[in-house]
Formats: sequence, C-alpha cells, structure tokens
Amino acid sequence: MSAPKPSIPSGTRDFLPLQTRRRQHILQTAARVFTKYGYQPIETPALEKLSVLTGKYGEEGDQLLFKVLNSGDYLAKADAGLLAARNSAALAPQLCERALRYDLTVPFARFVVMHQHELEFPFKRYQMQPVWRADRPQKGRYREFWQCDVDVAGSTSLLHEAEFIAIYDEILSALGLTDFTIMLNHRKLLAGLAEAAGCADKFTDLCVAIDKLDKIGPDGVRQELSARGITPAQAEKLLPWFALQGTPTQVLAQLQTQVPPNALLSAAQADLHQMLAYHAVMPHFRAQLRLDLSLARGLNYYTGTIFEVRAGGVQIGSIGGGGRYDDLTGMFGKSGIPGAGISLGADRVYDVLDELGLFAQLPHSGTQVLIIRFSPDSEAEELTLLSRLRQADIAAEVYHEPARLGKQFGYADKKQIPWCLVLGDEERAAGKATLKDMQSGAQQAVDFAGIVAKLQHA
Amino acid sequence: MSAPKPSIPSGTRDFLPLQTRRRQHILQTAARVFTKYGYQPIETPALEKLSVLTGKYGEEGDQLLFKVLNSGDYLAKADAGLLAARNSAALAPQLCERALRYDLTVPFARFVVMHQHELEFPFKRYQMQPVWRADRPQKGRYREFWQCDVDVAGSTSLLHEAEFIAIYDEILSALGLTDFTIMLNHRKLLAGLAEAAGCADKFTDLCVAIDKLDKIGPDGVRQELSARGITPAQAEKLLPWFALQGTPTQVLAQLQTQVPPNALLSAAQADLHQMLAYHAVMPHFRAQLRLDLSLARGLNYYTGTIFEVRAGGVQIGSIGGGGRYDDLTGMFGKSGIPGAGISLGADRVYDVLDELGLFAQLPHSGTQVLIIRFSPDSEAEELTLLSRLRQADIAAEVYHEPARLGKQFGYADKKQIPWCLVLGDEERAAGKATLKDMQSGAQQAVDFAGIVAKLQHA
Repeated sequence: MSAPKPSIPSGTRDFLPLQTRRRQHILQTAARVFTKYGYQPIETPALEKLSVLTGKYGEEGDQLLFKVLNSGDYLAKADAGLLAARNSAALAPQLCERALRYDLTVPFARFVVMHQHELEFPFKRYQMQPVWRADRPQKGRYREFWQCDVDVAGSTSLLHEAEFIAIYDEILSALGLTDFTIMLNHRKLLAGLAEAAGCADKFTDLCVAIDKLDKIGPDGVRQELSARGITPAQAEKLLPWFALQGTPTQVLAQLQTQVPPNALLSAAQADLHQMLAYHAVMPHFRAQLRLDLSLARGLNYYTGTIFEVRAGGVQIGSIGGGGRYDDLTGMFGKSGIPGAGISLGADRVYDVLDELGLFAQLPHSGTQVLIIRFSPDSEAEELTLLSRLRQADIAAEVYHEPARLGKQFGYADKKQIPWCLVLGDEERAAGKATLKDMQSGAQQAVDFAGIVAKLQHA
Repeated sequence: MSAPKPSIPSGTRDFLPLQTRRRQHILQTAARVFTKYGYQPIETPALEKLSVLTGKYGEEGDQLLFKVLNSGDYLAKADAGLLAARNSAALAPQLCERALRYDLTVPFARFVVMHQHELEFPFKRYQMQPVWRADRPQKGRYREFWQCDVDVAGSTSLLHEAEFIAIYDEILSALGLTDFTIMLNHRKLLAGLAEAAGCADKFTDLCVAIDKLDKIGPDGVRQELSARGITPAQAEKLLPWFALQGTPTQVLAQLQTQVPPNALLSAAQADLHQMLAYHAVMPHFRAQLRLDLSLARGLNYYTGTIFEVRAGGVQIGSIGGGGRYDDLTGMFGKSGIPGAGISLGADRVYDVLDELGLFAQLPHSGTQVLIIRFSPDSEAEELTLLSRLRQADIAAEVYHEPARLGKQFGYADKKQIPWCLVLGDEERAAGKATLKDMQSGAQQAVDFAGIVAKLQHA
C-alpha cells in the first residue's frame, strides 16, 4: 500500500535552506537596526484566547481568524439548537477557546496591559513572529507570514515617528534597496481637510474614497465621493489639495496658504513639522520621503501620524506601514497609554529583494569547506583536519562515506560549498593538503595551519 | 464599561525582553554550532494537514494535536449522525483539515519526500521552530515550546552520530554548562540482550520496564518484568547486564565477555565502537559520555543508536534526545531513506541555565547608552550625538522627553543600560559630554570622538 503524496495547506510554504538563510538575513538585519534604536525584543504565544482577538479586526477580520478546536469532547457543552441548525458562526466560540495570532499589535496591547507593572515606560519593543490569516491565498498573500513590528507604548513624543522613518531607511538600505519611498500622512490632516471642505461628517467616506486616488485617478475619486454623499462643491475643494506636489515641507507650506485653517490642521501640521525636524538630524540612507495626503491606512485605531512604504521597480504592494494611536490598550480596559508603531512585512520584503536580484550579493553563509574522502589511509588525517577547522570556528564537513571524487565534488557544488580539501598521498606526506577553489577551479597545496588561516579570512 | 483583564491560554507564555534575549542566545548558539557541522536551516509551516500528522505519534499523540477549525461554514458537510450523537472524536477530521505542528521530525520527513528532487543527499538540516501539544501543562511542560532539531537524511554513516555527540557537547559547553551527561544506547543492543535472555518476543515489554530502572530500582524492575510475562530466570540474566559500570568502552568489553553472542549484539557493538572511534578525534568540551543500557527512548521509529542528554545539578528531565531510524520517510510512501537526528529542548535548556544562574555571565545586549535630555539648549547637540552613535553601530537612545534627571537615570537603570551621557553646559562649551558608568557611578568628560571609540570597545 503506498501512502498518498503528502502536501502542505494552501497558503503556507516550506522554506529550503537558501530561502531560509535569506529570510534569516532579513530578520537579523531588522533586529540589528531595531536594537540600535533602543527597541527590545519580546515574544508572545501563537495561540491567543479567542476572546482576546474577537472584535479587534472588524467583522471581516473575525472571519479570517484561524480558530483552534478545544481538546477532548469539544461538542459536549455545545448548544443543542445551534448544533441542530448547523449554525457554524454562532457555535465557533463554544467549540474554540483559542485562535492563532492575527497580527502583532493586539497581542502587544494585551502584553502591555498584562505586564504593565513589570515594564519601564516608555516601553519600546520589537517583535518578529509569524501571524495567520484565513485569507484567500494569492501571489504575495499567504495564510502564514511573518511580521516585524516596532512599537512604543507610553509616549507621545514625535521623536519616535522620526526614528521610525530612520529605521525603515536603514533596514531597507542595508538590505540593498536603493529605490523606495516612505509615505507620510496624519489622520488629523485628513480630518482637518474634511472639515475645511465642509464634510467633517463624511470623514470615513472621504478616507475610503481618497485612498483609491492612485488606482482610479481624480475622476474615479470624484464619482466615489459623490456616491458617498460628498457634494460636487466639496469634492472640487478637496481634489486640488490632494494634488499638491513637492517635498513634505513644500506641501505643508502650500496647505498653509491654500486651506482655511482649523484646529485639526494646525495640530497635524505642528506634528509633521516637528517630526521632520527631528528626522533631519538622524542618519539618512536611500529613502525618499513623501507627504501623501491621500494615504489613509485602513485600520481605524490610528489617530495621528501614519506611514506606508513602497519599493520602486516592482509591482508589490506596500512592504510596511504603521502610525500613532492615542489609546493602545483601551480595548483591554486600560486607557491613557498612547502608542505608535510600524510593521515591516518580511515576506513582501523577501519578494522585493528576490525580484530585484539583491540576494545575489549575500555572502555564502553555510559550510565553507568540504573535506574529500580520498582513501582509507587518509581517513584519520581527514577527520583530524575536520576537527581543527571546526575548533577554529570554520563551518566544515567531511563527505559522509568513501565515494568517487566526482561525486564528492558534485555534492560540494550542489551545496555551494566554496572550498574543497583533498589529502592526496604526496601532499599528506609533506604535511599538506590540496585546497580547491570551487568557483575558479584553482588548486594549491597548503599546510594545515595555512588552511585554517586562509579559510578564517576567506 | 471596563473590559475583563486579558490573559493568555494555559500552557503558553509571554516572554519579556530579558527572557527573549536569553532565548535568542540559546537559539543563536545552537544555530552557530549546527552550521559549523554542515547543517543547513529549513522552515516548515506551523499549520500541517491533519492527515499528514494523524497516526504518526500513536493514539495518545493524535489526541494531543491542536486541530484548526475549517474556515467558513465548517458544519455544512458534517455527518448528520455523528453530529446528532455529538461524536467529537469522529467528527474532528470533518471539521478540521489542518493542525498545528506537533514535532519537527514528521514535518521533516514530509519535507524530504515533497522536495526530494531539490535536495542534495545526504541532506543535513537544522530546524528551530515552536511545536504545540495539548498536553496537561505542568512545571517545565508547555503547550507551545521550541524544538531545535538536526537530522540527516540519506546516510547510514556513523560519523553523524559521532557529530551529534560533539554538537551537544559544544552547544551546551558554549552555554556555560559544565556538568552534563550524554547517554548512549542502541536499539539493537537492547534487542540482542532480550534475545540472549530468551525473551526476544517480549522486547517492547523489556524496554518499558527497564526504562524505569532509574526511578524504581532493580526490585521494581523485577516486579515490572514479571508483570509483563518475563520469567524470573530471564530477569536474573538480564539485570546484571543492566548494572554494568564503566566507560562506554569498558561496558562494551564486559558485555562481550558476559553475554552469549548473537547477530543483533554484534551489529550494535560494531556500530557503537565505530561511533566512539569517530568521536575520539572530534573536539571535546565538558560532556560526559555514558553507555546507558537501560535507555530505551519511547518513540518506536528508532532502530539504531539512541541518545539522551541530562544536566547535572538540576531536577529537570532530559534536555535533548534522538537516534537513528532506518526508514525516515516510509510513512509518506517513500522508503529507502535512512535518517538520524537529535533534538535540543530549548525551553528545558533555558530552565537549566536559569536555575544554575548561568545567564548572569551574558553580556548586556540591548541599548548601550542613554543620552539624557539636559536642557532645551542642548537638544540639538543631543540628537546629533545620538545620530553619530547610531552611525557607528552603537545601540543608543535619547530619553523621549525633557524630564527630571533622576527619572531619566532611573529609566536607564531599569532597562539596564550600562552608560549615560549628559551634555551639561560646561562640557558642551568644551565640545564634550559627561559619560557615566551606571554600574560604578564613575563619571568622566569625554569629547564626541572619544565617546564613540570608548563605547565601540565597551
């Protein structure tokens, strides 16, 4: 009887060694920069209580939670009527007490509330873990994927926002990206524009419509605004403001002269000016900054600055985003803790680097040298040399069994091992071995000490 | 309305920054050593198909799988009779197509079968990921915990077993353990002893009984053997063999003279001698090796050498184990691929290091220096210095807002930041800042270049 060929769930992935190393490179780069900016790592469980997650991501989000069936006799206490009616939705909370983490922000808010007396505020944390969403899988969208988040809890300082820009800039530049844009906006700027146009009551509609400016253009937005009850006169006021061009400072200056002032606008402008001033003295790499007034960000908990990052030269959506929320932990009954944070989509970043061919620059990080099994006579010395290499912290292997030389070199090739060592009879007699550069094919006889020195600096 | 205080599922844990860093230290140490021995990283999804996992861990294991409820109308196609009978067990596979990974070995076997044409054999992989078991939580036993596995697929060479010993030795020694024992045995040695005592048909019973020798002593084992149908005469033959003392080589020599030979014994002895010979030329650290004939390991798929690691000075069970299995991938319809591997229980290792106070030696790996907000006049220079420090790859922070000096130093203390910098008026006028060692309280005035140099080498 032959077993069926195994497979993995739709929307999930296996990672082969090369992919895993490249993913590790992204995560390690992010962790290094997060640490440099004073963020500390935390981890939360993959399993959260369903009650902690429910209601935090809107109705659609609730449906995308992966719920985990209770252990044992999970049907014992299920409501008979719901069971008879096969009411899947209403029964789920009775069958499932737990669900898989959907993002890292809600678990962070839960964490801050649960551990508030163990934390020093402002609490700056980074967290890099997988999240799960029962979304329809498609190119670039997975059901299990990694988020890398930094958030600060307990501070309203705009220094953090300036640092978020610098963090994005430094991570993505360190990964080799040269063309990417960090888009900025402020929820109060959007609210202020709505007020200035006389449609403050239609703020959410305005956000939904204007968010599509990129895709459907001004005429499309006009229709969308109209369909959402914003008058043509209001729309004609709004659209020129969203068409302003220039550096963030230039756009802010134009707003200042073109839009009738109100308190929301002033607050947003003050925040953005302060943030840009802080950012001016921070390290700069390759990022372009753009004040994009049409950026709205879907999640409703943002109340201040908002961010989104896009890579140039590829057709992949945003690779990161975030913003400020006045009340991080109110959903768990603890108000008065402001928060701000950004997320980096590690899987999207991977796809961007892959598509742009930027992984090719990565040095080989696996085994550095394969010792060839030459003959039964040489085995003892091969193993001794192997041991010396490893004691010198050089990643080394010996081929697992005696075999044709061609087969052994083939193994090194396939594993992209850059060097091979052969302890031929003559070299061995002279206390040496032949070191072969697998890229160029060049060979040289080197003594044991020389091999260690050479590979340590390779 | 105040929300209920949030909590996390029983058997899961949040990790605070210090704990997370210590866990990272364990995982990074393991990864470094695995790489040095030629193992390559892979990752598999947390979600596996339920059909892939079911039946692989015995009946008990099946019950401990966390099953994930299907999305949408999961009850639509459920069997009416089973539903009416509330047959939880029989309905589960109809409601759940997916489950959470239970270990890393079965996913590895699945991975090898699915990717066999992309892999170079022998395929040496390491994998460090969480696993989930719906076990009853207790001290040291969690429902979500990390495993670190190395396995080789496609080789019968005992070099790998010798390397497993060296890998355990190097990782645990690098983590600071000085007292730990790697216990060795061979399933064929156990089978050979059963045959020599005339109870080959009672092999499994013998394994179960003898595995308890540590806990219940020889008399307890005598009773257990008798209860399992092994005669007193057979037991009296067996028990002295299990009481043999000495180094692995000495125990093997005594077996040679005291036990009537058979093919199983010979095969096991040859394997163990070869493994010990290979190991003799490998790097040695602090591990003690012991041939423990009573070691049986529960999992039935082991067919050759077996391993288990215990730390001295603590009452924590095994911190690792593994062995050889002739047929890794037969469960997925692909036979002929032998395997061998070991696992390191990262959570158990954490508990051991914690209990022995070995984390205290770890250098501080977070923020190195906090820049104090001294006055409005000094802000620009504080931010400039912050930027210089970060450009020099020094993890640095500035306090997020103007505040009393005491509060700011308190923040540094709580976050265990080793240095603070104060840009007082006089120092600033001289192009300097006061660098305070937070451990000793010592202060000195240093110019900017000197600060960078000093902290880079701190």
